[in-house]
Amino acid sequence: MDLLVDHHCHGVVRRELDRAEFEARLSEADRPAPGTTLFDSALGDALRRHCFPVLDLLATADPDDYLARRAELGHEEVTGRLLRAAGLAAVLVDTGFLPEPLTTPAELAAAAGATAHEVVRLESVAEELEVGTATGFAGAVHEALAAAAARPDTVAFKSVAAYRVGLALGDERPSEAEVREAAGRWLADGAGRLADEVLHRFLAFAALDTGLPLQFHTGLGDRDTDLRLGDPLLLAPWLRAAESTEVPVLLLHCYPYHRNAAYLAQVFPAVHMDLGLATHNVGARAPGVLAEALELCPYGKFLYSSDGYALPELHFLGAVLFRAAADADLIPRTTENAHRVYPTVGGRGPGR
Amino acid sequence: MDLLVDHHCHGVVRRELDRAEFEARLSEADRPAPGTTLFDSALGDALRRHCFPVLDLLATADPDDYLARRAELGHEEVTGRLLRAAGLAAVLVDTGFLPEPLTTPAELAAAAGATAHEVVRLESVAEELEVGTATGFAGAVHEALAAAAARPDTVAFKSVAAYRVGLALGDERPSEAEVREAAGRWLADGAGRLADEVLHRFLAFAALDTGLPLQFHTGLGDRDTDLRLGDPLLLAPWLRAAESTEVPVLLLHCYPYHRNAAYLAQVFPAVHMDLGLATHNVGARAPGVLAEALELCPYGKFLYSSDGYALPELHFLGAVLFRAAADADLIPRTTENAHRVYPTVGGRGPGR
Amino acid sequence: MDLLVDHHCHGVVRRELDRAEFEARLSEADRPAPGTTLFDSALGDALRRHCFPVLDLLATADPDDYLARRAELGHEEVTGRLLRAAGLAAVLVDTGFLPEPLTTPAELAAAAGATAHEVVRLESVAEELEVGTATGFAGAVHEALAAAAARPDTVAFKSVAAYRVGLALGDERPSEAEVREAAGRWLADGAGRLADEVLHRFLAFAALDTGLPLQFHTGLGDRDTDLRLGDPLLLAPWLRAAESTEVPVLLLHCYPYHRNAAYLAQVFPAVHMDLGLATHNVGARAPGVLAEALELCPYGKFLYSSDGYALPELHFLGAVLFRAAADADLIPRTTENAHRVYPTVGGRGPGR
Repeated sequence: MDLLVDHHCHGVVRRELDRAEFEARLSEADRPAPGTTLFDSALGDALRRHCFPVLDLLATADPDDYLARRAELGHEEVTGRLLRAAGLAAVLVDTGFLPEPLTTPAELAAAAGATAHEVVRLESVAEELEVGTATGFAGAVHEALAAAAARPDTVAFKSVAAYRVGLALGDERPSEAEVREAAGRWLADGAGRLADEVLHRFLAFAALDTGLPLQFHTGLGDRDTDLRLGDPLLLAPWLRAAESTEVPVLLLHCYPYHRNAAYLAQVFPAVHMDLGLATHNVGARAPGVLAEALELCPYGKFLYSSDGYALPELHFLGAVLFRAAADADLIPRTTENAHRVYPTVGGRGPGR
Repeated sequence: MDLLVDHHCHGVVRRELDRAEFEARLSEADRPAPGTTLFDSALGDALRRHCFPVLDLLATADPDDYLARRAELGHEEVTGRLLRAAGLAAVLVDTGFLPEPLTTPAELAAAAGATAHEVVRLESVAEELEVGTATGFAGAVHEALAAAAARPDTVAFKSVAAYRVGLALGDERPSEAEVREAAGRWLADGAGRLADEVLHRFLAFAALDTGLPLQFHTGLGDRDTDLRLGDPLLLAPWLRAAESTEVPVLLLHCYPYHRNAAYLAQVFPAVHMDLGLATHNVGARAPGVLAEALELCPYGKFLYSSDGYALPELHFLGAVLFRAAADADLIPRTTENAHRVYPTVGGRGPGR
Repeated sequence: MDLLVDHHCHGVVRRELDRAEFEARLSEADRPAPGTTLFDSALGDALRRHCFPVLDLLATADPDDYLARRAELGHEEVTGRLLRAAGLAAVLVDTGFLPEPLTTPAELAAAAGATAHEVVRLESVAEELEVGTATGFAGAVHEALAAAAARPDTVAFKSVAAYRVGLALGDERPSEAEVREAAGRWLADGAGRLADEVLHRFLAFAALDTGLPLQFHTGLGDRDTDLRLGDPLLLAPWLRAAESTEVPVLLLHCYPYHRNAAYLAQVFPAVHMDLGLATHNVGARAPGVLAEALELCPYGKFLYSSDGYALPELHFLGAVLFRAAADADLIPRTTENAHRVYPTVGGRGPGR
């Protein structure tokens, strides 16, 4: 089996989950509608077909049986089985979204038999700074990003501007005065959740200065996102402005705007894409969605990711559905692409 | 055969139609282009293949032969044959669009051997009010909606805001003063066709107060619609604001934004969708379009409708194309979903 | 073999090309990303499979071998082989984009064994005028368009408003004063590249006055385009305003907004569409994209074009991929449609 580099995922939960907790983490919905279950969906079908057997159940078993079997085996055994079955060479873990304790990159990688790497979320870096004055903000960010980039595990930064202000970032680096003013507003407001176009734009340009690849959340997200503002085409002016740096840019998920992302990947040398979150959400339709993305996306610009979060089922389903959807050639190609984009990522050895 | 609940359709014409009149009602076009015919389309192909045999013609017959056969049998016999062949348990009929006399819900249901139910169009209710003053408008609307909701046949309300002002409705109930002011403008303007964001938003919130499900026209419509303003994603802020009422919301048609609608159906517990009008318009491509919708839409949130209007061929084609497109499991599921959303709808008995 | 009318293409390069020059003309990208090649894409796969054999190579040959074989045969032989293999009755050549010398319509047609026709780009006509004063601009444009329309080879005009200002053209003919003012700004600015909504709108309305069909670039374009502004739905208000003239309007390429274009082709009698550029870009996915377009587009409104530019491979690939994607009926149908839209186009004789 060709191993995959999962170039964007999250840790998994460190405890047992009841059915409501499990369903709440299954898709972008945070709960099923009354009288329905999220198991009855393309994702649920994929879960039955691919995950139930990994826990020794038939695909026809009841979801409650699956939850019972999960509890019986224990979350560590479940995580180990599913992550090993995913066939991963390396995991690049976004450590910036932790509404509850999740496994660290090292723990996730150990469970998967893969190498561990970290993707540092720009907004988390900024939000965790201890800066007292607007004047000090820009310098503190540059320093913190340089420090993060210098850590051997760090392989990329990630922007969640799509969630906070949308992808229509301006095409010029904000001036020192603009950053100071925006930071002032943010500090005056309690220095909580960043949601200011100037600051997200500043962070994205500041990330380029480190030379590390920059991932952008685009498209599909949870119910708080305004999906229209996640159309990657909105990022085109910023991409043109960023182009001279030659820093690789990675558009994540992209669905339902994956054809738009593929156009950008065709015409901008630095732009790459994946289907991330969409792969496991659409279940057996993954081949159709992948085919649409590859209408325009050059094969050298497509990467694999699961965007698995909280449930190891999602890391596994991403991999198994991608393997079923992709031509045999594309699987090792995405791994080569990941190694070209992230040269310090390990796991090159076996598998081919 | 599992019977379907057609949860959104219209009545049919009560007279014979010549070919031009027939073609004008076939699709969203109101006439063919010079030198062409609307029979030469995906919809025309479906009509030949599925409807011609119901009137005892081969699928290879000429459209003129079909029109002749239609006249020979008479519109009542044609309507009866096609509606019975559709296999319907219940019809939910939008009675708010009558550019010419159409069958009543009871007549349509009788022809189909189904139970009759009414969907009341909000804008028609408002436009038919006899209010002399802006001050009385809001109260009169609430009273009229409560009265409509109290009629035993009424199972839902419907908004055509998409056609009139687009779906970007605000996320707050308009204040009394705002409604009064907007109603004043409308009355001063002759109290004709409503097209005012405040009034459509007011109507949508007022409908929620009755507790009945609320249908929204979205996506595909006739040539007067601005299709871009019918993207269901534009409704997301309103959906968030409406959420606490737990009233079911039904996004109709959705095409070509059906993936966007499916995302909303995944993440908002109250949101449901169908493909309505799109099913018969796309003919043999219905499986492809349905597959795209079900990438994200949980199976418990998908309903069936034909959006048949004027021609019983469209009620029949919706059903036959949906049956051909859907997995065997999905067909009874859409009926269960309809019964959950519209608990007073009949036709539960036979068929399963 | 039914011959095709290629109703929108460009000339081909008159010299040998090295690999970098070839790749730069292959897709909408102007260069490959470092470490990748544009041969590794859906378009590259199609090139290998369909073009390599025309130059006597196996589809498994190396791209460098293909470039060597191309040089060995010489560009004239290569052009002749590929264009003849395309099976074209007529070529309608846009002569308004010449960053380097390309074959004339007559030369291209001779190589293809087809009849030659010219599509005149509105913006080029305006940019080549020698008008000294804003007052004289409108009259000079009308005169130049009438003169162009009177040339026997001219069969259509084309607007590239999508590239310059986007397709959201206003729905009224600009007044004389508005045109004069806009022309004044343009002249004061050096009378270079036109990019002014008033002037593009004026040109589009002025083209209608000649009675010749009007082509619009929409959707997919090179990296300078803002793809969002090329959504053909943005043109709907202008299309309504233009409708009374009954002049055929042709929406070119349309991808990824081809379903939107198909809706316009269904509801506006004068509106037609093609997939142009998209057909060769998406390679083996052409059947899927065509199927989406034909969900709503009546068959009498769909035309064939390659949008081949610079490389005869693209003219050939457009044809071979369209033939593979289309039902047998659709191929002669597109030719009939072209003859109806462009009544002076030749090549009616053989082939059917």
